[in-house]
Amino acid sequence: MILAQRRLCSLGTREKFLKRICSSKLLGFSTSAKMALKFKNASRIKGLDSNVWIEFTKLAADPSVVNLGQGLPDISPPTYVKEELSKVALTDNLNQYTRGFGHPSLVKALSSLYEKFYQNKINPDKEILVTVGAYGSLFNAIQGLIDPGDEVIIMVPFYDCYEPMVRMAGATPVFIPLRSRHTDGTKWSSSDWTLDPQELASKFNSKTKAIILNTPHNPIGKVYSEEELRLIADLCIKHDTLCISDEVYEWLVYTGNKHVKIATFPGMWDRTVTIGSAGKTYSVTGWKLGWSIGPNHLIKHLQTVQQNTVYTCATPLQEALAQAFWIDIKRMGDPECYFNSLPKELEAKRDRMVDLLESVGLRPIVPDGGYFIIANVSSLDADLSDMKSDDPYDYKFVKWMTKNKKLSAIPVSAFCNSETKAQFEKFVRFCFIKKDSTLDAAEEIIKAWSRQKS
Amino acid sequence: MILAQRRLCSLGTREKFLKRICSSKLLGFSTSAKMALKFKNASRIKGLDSNVWIEFTKLAADPSVVNLGQGLPDISPPTYVKEELSKVALTDNLNQYTRGFGHPSLVKALSSLYEKFYQNKINPDKEILVTVGAYGSLFNAIQGLIDPGDEVIIMVPFYDCYEPMVRMAGATPVFIPLRSRHTDGTKWSSSDWTLDPQELASKFNSKTKAIILNTPHNPIGKVYSEEELRLIADLCIKHDTLCISDEVYEWLVYTGNKHVKIATFPGMWDRTVTIGSAGKTYSVTGWKLGWSIGPNHLIKHLQTVQQNTVYTCATPLQEALAQAFWIDIKRMGDPECYFNSLPKELEAKRDRMVDLLESVGLRPIVPDGGYFIIANVSSLDADLSDMKSDDPYDYKFVKWMTKNKKLSAIPVSAFCNSETKAQFEKFVRFCFIKKDSTLDAAEEIIKAWSRQKS
Ligand SMILES: Cc1ncc(COP(=O)(O)O)c(C=O)c1O
Ligand SMILES: Cc1ncc(COP(=O)(O)O)c(C=O)c1O
Repeated sequence: MILAQRRLCSLGTREKFLKRICSSKLLGFSTSAKMALKFKNASRIKGLDSNVWIEFTKLAADPSVVNLGQGLPDISPPTYVKEELSKVALTDNLNQYTRGFGHPSLVKALSSLYEKFYQNKINPDKEILVTVGAYGSLFNAIQGLIDPGDEVIIMVPFYDCYEPMVRMAGATPVFIPLRSRHTDGTKWSSSDWTLDPQELASKFNSKTKAIILNTPHNPIGKVYSEEELRLIADLCIKHDTLCISDEVYEWLVYTGNKHVKIATFPGMWDRTVTIGSAGKTYSVTGWKLGWSIGPNHLIKHLQTVQQNTVYTCATPLQEALAQAFWIDIKRMGDPECYFNSLPKELEAKRDRMVDLLESVGLRPIVPDGGYFIIANVSSLDADLSDMKSDDPYDYKFVKWMTKNKKLSAIPVSAFCNSETKAQFEKFVRFCFIKKDSTLDAAEEIIKAWSRQKS
Repeated sequence: MILAQRRLCSLGTREKFLKRICSSKLLGFSTSAKMALKFKNASRIKGLDSNVWIEFTKLAADPSVVNLGQGLPDISPPTYVKEELSKVALTDNLNQYTRGFGHPSLVKALSSLYEKFYQNKINPDKEILVTVGAYGSLFNAIQGLIDPGDEVIIMVPFYDCYEPMVRMAGATPVFIPLRSRHTDGTKWSSSDWTLDPQELASKFNSKTKAIILNTPHNPIGKVYSEEELRLIADLCIKHDTLCISDEVYEWLVYTGNKHVKIATFPGMWDRTVTIGSAGKTYSVTGWKLGWSIGPNHLIKHLQTVQQNTVYTCATPLQEALAQAFWIDIKRMGDPECYFNSLPKELEAKRDRMVDLLESVGLRPIVPDGGYFIIANVSSLDADLSDMKSDDPYDYKFVKWMTKNKKLSAIPVSAFCNSETKAQFEKFVRFCFIKKDSTLDAAEEIIKAWSRQKS
C-alpha cells in the first residue's frame, strides 16, 4: 500500500541528499555513501516500499495480542490437507522440480474442478498457470499484459497490492470508489456498496487496458451480483478491455448469495484471467499456491513471466493440493465437502462478529462473502492524542488498540489510494476466520472496553 | 534461453500479422483476433517466451528415457529433511502466512550459518531475503536494482535465465565468453576455462550496473579461484559496479578446490548480493526456496520487489529447511554433515562419468564443482540428417539422442547468447546427481552405442 503524498515528501528529501553527495563529486565519502548513489533502487520500484502487512504484522507479533488483523486463519486446516503434505514430503521425486507452469496432477485437478463452472473445457496445460499464491497470479497477469502508459481500473477499497503492482508495470491506476447507498435503522450490508454505473463508464477510455475485479471482495465482503457483473462485462467488451478477476474467496459466500464468475458471461472468457488461491480455498495461507485460468492467448503471457521470475512452484505443496482437490471434487454436493463446510462454519463466526460489534454500539457492514468485516470505529471515541504521526485515523486507531487493548485489526485506508483514504479512514477491518477461543478473547476485550466507557 | 536471431525473425512475422489485422481496422474479425491485437504481451516480455527446460523436460518425460538432462537429483534427499517437512505439515500455524522477507527461524538459521563465512555479523531481518528459489533471488535483484539502459555483464556460458531476466528489466546484457586454454593429452579441466583479463576490463564502462558471477559454475563446473575473483572484484570497485553472485552450488566442490565468496573481499560486501538455494543445498529442487544475502542498502530493494510480486514464501518449507540447517550447522566439521557428505558422494559420480565418457572416446571437461559435466559430442558422429530444423547442432543432437538412444541431456548452446552459440554448440551437458542405477542405465546405453559404432 502506498501513501503517495508521503512518498513524494520522502523522495524529495532523498533527492536532495543525493544531489548533495553528487555535488561533492563523491570525494571523501565512504563506500556506503557512494553505493547509495549508484545502487539506489531501480526506478520501477520507486516509492513502492511501504506495506501495510509488514507494518501491522510486526505490531501483532506480541503473543499477548488477540490478532484479528491479517487474513490468517487460526482454525485448523482440514486434516486430510495437512496429511497429504505430510505423506508427499516422504516421497523422493515429489521433492524435485516439476513442470514450470503447474505440476501435472494439479493442473489436471484444477481443470476438472473448474470445468464444472465454465461452459467450456479447460486445457490444463494451456489455460491454467499455477503461481506463487494468488499474489503471484496478479503479478504475472499485470507484468505479462500491462504496458507502461496503459490505464488499469481499480475499485476502492482494494486488496492493497493492486496499486503498487500496476505502478511497477509503469501503468496508471484509475480508481473508482464503491459507494454506500443511504441506509437507516436496518442492517448495513456489503451489498449496499455499489459502483455508480455512469461513474464506472466514465473511467473507460482508449488507454484502458484492464480492470481488476475482486469478488467476493476484500475488505468489504461484497459479492458482486449478476447485474453488477454484467455492467462491468459490457464495458469491457465495448472498450476491448481485459478483466483480471480476483476470486480467491470464491467458496466463501453466505446464505442468500451466489458467487458468479465474470468469465462465464458471453464474450468474457476470451478477455478474462480468473485468479484463485489454495491458501484461501483450504485455509493454508502459508502454502502460497494460486492459479490463473483463462484463454491460452492470455495465459501464455503469464507463463512467460513465470518462466523468467520463479520458473516453477514448490512440488510437494502442488501434489498435496492436487490430492486434496480430488477428495473434494468427488463430493462437491455433500455438506462435508470443504467448499460447503467452511462457508457454513464461517457464517456462524460472521454472525457472532456482527452481534459483538453491534453490542458495543458499532454498525458493522455485514459481509456477504469472504472472512472480513469492517466497521466505522469513530464512535468508540478512542483517545488517540498520544498517537502522534501523520497517519490516517484508522492507522492510529489500530496502533492504539493493539497497544492499549491488545486487540489488532487492519486499517481500511490501507486498501485505498491517497485520494480516497479520507473516505474510509474511520473504518477498520476485523478477520473472523478464527477459532472460538480467539473470538472469545476478542469478545472479552471489546466488552470490557465498552463497560469501561459507560 | 533466447535465440535472439530467431526471435527477431519471428517477431518480424508477428508484427506483419498484426499490421495486417490493423489495416483491416478489425472489421469482420472474430473476438479472438481482436483480442490478439489488444491483449498481446506487454513489451517487457517480448521474445522471452522460449525456454530450454520446458522444451527438453517435455522430451525427457517419456519414462523409458534415462534422464541426465535437467539438474534434477534422483538420489534421495536426506531423510531428516523430508521428515522435518512431514512433521511441520501437521502443525496448524506452520501452514499459515509467515513474515514476508523470510520466516523468522529460517533467516536466523541462515545468518548463523553464513556468519561463519563472512567477516561480519549478518542481520537476519535486514541483510537476508528468502525467495522463491535462487531463481526468485536473481529476479528480485535484477528488478530491484537494474534500470532500463543499464548494462549487465554476463559470462558465457551462463545459467540460461540471466539473459531474459536482464532483458525483462530493459537492460542490455554484455557477454564475455570463458575461453579454454590449449590443453593436449592430459585431462581437460573446468579450470582451463578462464576469462581474458583485458577482455573483461573492456566490458566495463560508465553504464555497467552489475556483473553476474556464477561459482561453482553451471554448466562448466568451474570453481573460480581467489585470483580470478580478485580481478573481478577490482573491476567492480574501480567501476562502482554491483556483483550478483550466484553460488547455488557452493557446497559442491571437489578435492583440491575451495569455494570462495567474492563478498568477503575488501570493499565487496557493500556491493554484492550473494545467492543460495535450498534445492541445491539439500537436493530438494522441488522446494523452490532460495536466499539473497547482502548489505541492507541493496537487500531492501530486493525486499520491495518481493512484497510486490509474491509477498512471502511457503511457510512449511521454510520451517523444515530451518530445522534441517540447525542439524547441519551443529556438525559442520563432521563428515556426516550434508555439506561435506554430498560433495564426497558426488565426486565419485563425477569420476564415474568422466571414465564413462572417456571410454567412448569423448574428452569431457572435468568439473571442479557443481553436478554437471560437459563434453564435445561431435566425434560421436550421430547421423542428424533426420533432425530437420534450424536448431544448433547440440539441440538436434540431444533430440536425436533422446529419441534414438533413450538418453537425455541438455544442449550447452542453451546457455549462450546468440553470438556465442556457435562456440559451444558441439557440447552437451550431463547431470550426474543420479543414483547408481540411473548411471548404470546411462552407461549401458553409451557402451552399446559405442559398440554399435565400432
Ligand atoms: C483479494 C485477495 N487477493 C489475493 C490475495 C493473495 O492470496 P495468496 O496468499 O494466495 O497470494 C489475498 C490475500 O489476502 C486477497 O485477500
Ligand atoms: C546456476 C544456477 N542458478 C540458479 C538456479 C535456480 O535455483 P532454484 O531452483 O533454487 O531457483 C540454478 C538451477 O539449476 C542454477 O543452476
